[in-house]
Amino acid sequence: MNFSSKLLEKAVDEISQLPGIGKRTALRLVLHLLNRPKSQTLQLTESLNNLVENINFCQNCHNISDNETCEICTNPKRNSTVVCVVEDVRDVMAIENTAQFQGHYHVLGGKISPIEGIGPHNLKIESLVQKVKKNQIQELIFATSSTIEGDTTNFYIFKQLEGLEVTITTIARGISVGDELEYADEVTLGRSIINRIPFENSLKR
Amino acid sequence: MNFSSKLLEKAVDEISQLPGIGKRTALRLVLHLLNRPKSQTLQLTESLNNLVENINFCQNCHNISDNETCEICTNPKRNSTVVCVVEDVRDVMAIENTAQFQGHYHVLGGKISPIEGIGPHNLKIESLVQKVKKNQIQELIFATSSTIEGDTTNFYIFKQLEGLEVTITTIARGISVGDELEYADEVTLGRSIINRIPFENSLKR
Repeated sequence: MNFSSKLLEKAVDEISQLPGIGKRTALRLVLHLLNRPKSQTLQLTESLNNLVENINFCQNCHNISDNETCEICTNPKRNSTVVCVVEDVRDVMAIENTAQFQGHYHVLGGKISPIEGIGPHNLKIESLVQKVKKNQIQELIFATSSTIEGDTTNFYIFKQLEGLEVTITTIARGISVGDELEYADEVTLGRSIINRIPFENSLKR
Repeated sequence: MNFSSKLLEKAVDEISQLPGIGKRTALRLVLHLLNRPKSQTLQLTESLNNLVENINFCQNCHNISDNETCEICTNPKRNSTVVCVVEDVRDVMAIENTAQFQGHYHVLGGKISPIEGIGPHNLKIESLVQKVKKNQIQELIFATSSTIEGDTTNFYIFKQLEGLEVTITTIARGISVGDELEYADEVTLGRSIINRIPFENSLKR
């Protein structure tokens, strides 16, 4: 691209380093910034600066938080003996949106992925094992991605906890609510038959 | 969305105000910022602040520029008597990339669009008319979008210049280089027949 301004070029370069944003999109975004009041852009950049300067991760569950301990971990109404293990903060938000879970979380910060160079030591697995060893947890619910990486991560944690007294469960995999059988993939359909549940249970919501 | 952090929520809110970026994409971008070194984000926000604080528009052609007059207008090798009229800075970049034009530009800053509330007075038309009146221009090339709004803008400028001595041309519309006829739309194909050119001319590149 032939930029008429170094300032413009630098801004486009920086924005195009974000994931999923190419040079053209970056240019469109930057020109949009120039078309709106300057104060709005200063507000945007201030909020990003504030975020990276002041963000905390909960010392207990590693969730993103404004304080040392997050709102979920400090909420006395929530059950700290049931812990849901998730990959990142988006998963916490997704499960919170269901309003079906009243326990605590443990945010791993990713999943084991040799291809991306992420091993167990890059994730918050050790602190989870320590929590279990101190007998603070009765049930651990694995809610990682249903992928090879997610399954590997679950299996690794499972092995680390061998011999310790804790119930380990995993969220149900099966046909999505509202889906038609003919469009479901075989593996999912096969597992949903193997892991069938008593009909009465399906009536609960 | 259920945010565990006000800082996070504020940053996502700000980013999701950009065009084409929804809440989910904004969250993905913000989490990406948190995963990379803090300094990179500070660099990004600094370059955006610099841009909106210090950007200039060329006083001659209204192109984005770091100085009072842009590099194209100050280049003595370029022909200032041939002026290409475009909508915005992206069009300047697109034409510059072809390396086929050695004249000056005039950036309107958009096109006449009653639906979006953009009238002639919102565009840099008056300064163009003044330039023509001062006999500074021999040829004006319309290179606006091939849409109703683009055509309206061209026609409005054409009327403003009635009686003044200036050649007005428009870039050729026709079948794209590399396109097959059967996939071309009728209007384009029809115009390309009406505006056919001597075969010898098509051999020039």
